[in-house]
Amino acid sequence: MTEVDVLIIGGGVAGLAAAMYSGRFNLKTLVVGKEPGGATMLTDDIQNYPGFEKIGGMELVDKLTAHAKTSGAEVTMGSIEKIEKNDKMFATTNTKSEVVNAKTIIFATGTDYRKLGVPGEKEYLARGVHFCALCDAPLYKGKNVAMVGGGDGAVKESVAVAQHADKVTVIHLHDDVRGEPINVKKMKETTNISTISNNTIVEIKGDGKKLTSVVLQNPVGGKTELEFDGLFVEIGRIPLSSLAKDAGVELDEHNQVIVDKVGKTNIEGFYGAGDVTNSTFKQAITGVAQGVSASHSAFEYINKNF
Amino acid sequence: MTEVDVLIIGGGVAGLAAAMYSGRFNLKTLVVGKEPGGATMLTDDIQNYPGFEKIGGMELVDKLTAHAKTSGAEVTMGSIEKIEKNDKMFATTNTKSEVVNAKTIIFATGTDYRKLGVPGEKEYLARGVHFCALCDAPLYKGKNVAMVGGGDGAVKESVAVAQHADKVTVIHLHDDVRGEPINVKKMKETTNISTISNNTIVEIKGDGKKLTSVVLQNPVGGKTELEFDGLFVEIGRIPLSSLAKDAGVELDEHNQVIVDKVGKTNIEGFYGAGDVTNSTFKQAITGVAQGVSASHSAFEYINKNF
Repeated sequence: MTEVDVLIIGGGVAGLAAAMYSGRFNLKTLVVGKEPGGATMLTDDIQNYPGFEKIGGMELVDKLTAHAKTSGAEVTMGSIEKIEKNDKMFATTNTKSEVVNAKTIIFATGTDYRKLGVPGEKEYLARGVHFCALCDAPLYKGKNVAMVGGGDGAVKESVAVAQHADKVTVIHLHDDVRGEPINVKKMKETTNISTISNNTIVEIKGDGKKLTSVVLQNPVGGKTELEFDGLFVEIGRIPLSSLAKDAGVELDEHNQVIVDKVGKTNIEGFYGAGDVTNSTFKQAITGVAQGVSASHSAFEYINKNF
Repeated sequence: MTEVDVLIIGGGVAGLAAAMYSGRFNLKTLVVGKEPGGATMLTDDIQNYPGFEKIGGMELVDKLTAHAKTSGAEVTMGSIEKIEKNDKMFATTNTKSEVVNAKTIIFATGTDYRKLGVPGEKEYLARGVHFCALCDAPLYKGKNVAMVGGGDGAVKESVAVAQHADKVTVIHLHDDVRGEPINVKKMKETTNISTISNNTIVEIKGDGKKLTSVVLQNPVGGKTELEFDGLFVEIGRIPLSSLAKDAGVELDEHNQVIVDKVGKTNIEGFYGAGDVTNSTFKQAITGVAQGVSASHSAFEYINKNF
């Protein structure tokens, strides 16, 4: 059994920044992440993290990991499956039934890709259906691909995919895409990107081996089947909050952990940070600052209660 | 007369980060700062800005300034003296009677540390004299430092400094320190903290390169000179909020601009960010993220109202 001052669940940028500050507060700090880096790893060209005009997601994660370790925090990979509060301490158990007791928890598990939930999506996963443009776009050199989604993620990633694919068709629900103006401008200037508005995907078809076409549904019209070599799904992300919920933490209507300005949840000693919380503007920099604030809140709580 | 979408008052890191994002939102953005960089400039060795294990304050400010300019924002020096809201637009006037009209304002003027106002304080600033214990305490590992101040801030920060320094001497004006009992208790239990009561600092001395001693004055006794490696001044800070107050912005009991999680004040289109606001934990990284969130709020407001 391990005992720590601060257990940080989630190894993305919010968790890593929290770890760095907790280490600086001389608190015994353990980060448990499912995989290194979280969502930031999936962007190869970050241009809006203040301090770096341009940095790769992996490079930023490497820097934050090193910074956390230098400050004395331990960064590990694993999966916490259960959190219980006994008196003042949190008892957590991972998938290997190992127990970590913690005075405080900073919950920064992030999000997972939102899925379409249509026939064929699961069957053709990684065989035509992809959720990470950065990871998988190079597979489609010279090919004809679709992207579904109309938010800033889809807008940005379509430009990235268009650098590899011959033709990119962005399929979205509304009259126009909705992204940062600078990104929308870039997308509209990219000649091998076209858009289909007011449509959803209702089925993904294949030949048993790989995706061959997608079926679109127009809300007022009928269905259309279009042939593609691949489909990138960019329809947002869902918060990974069930572990917190099971521990009694209040979630909002989008299943996000409700936190105040300093990361406090409804449970004393339990803090939230990053994309899993009900923050308005989900950016690497805002998640990082949330991690820092949560760490400070944990520090003050420990000073007062232990 | 100039007209902009976003007028950012304050050229510190919060204002500069806000400017970078506003530029990326394709908003016409003007920063007016009294001096480049704000409080961040006062630390020559920042070790807690996530992304940089170690960076000079000036270097960080330079990076953020360049980043803001690359994104299209204009960064200028000057002093806004008056803000009036006419219908939907803000009319601002600087000391040269030049008028800038703005759809939105991001107020990020920061604070000024309350200073001792004694000889040597200015000369040895950042060379032995420090105003941010949290930022700079790690520089004094194993050293002998003084802290001046008897309020809760000094009480709390002395404990933080004592985790790094070998010996901390808290110099204060009254018979005893005045802090939250729990913090006072912790301070008194920390064996490497001692206190000197009923004394003020009347002079800071050094060897031309760095601080070497401080001169104390007891109101009924004489002067005493004591050698130290560093001095932390923790006698409070002053938010630079009078311009906002005159414009009708609500302040809290400490004269800080009251903002919500996304930087909104009581006046539509008027946002706050950084140390001038009622944020709990005042760090470069949290101010930067507040600037980013305020910029996003301004972007949404302009989209909706203009």
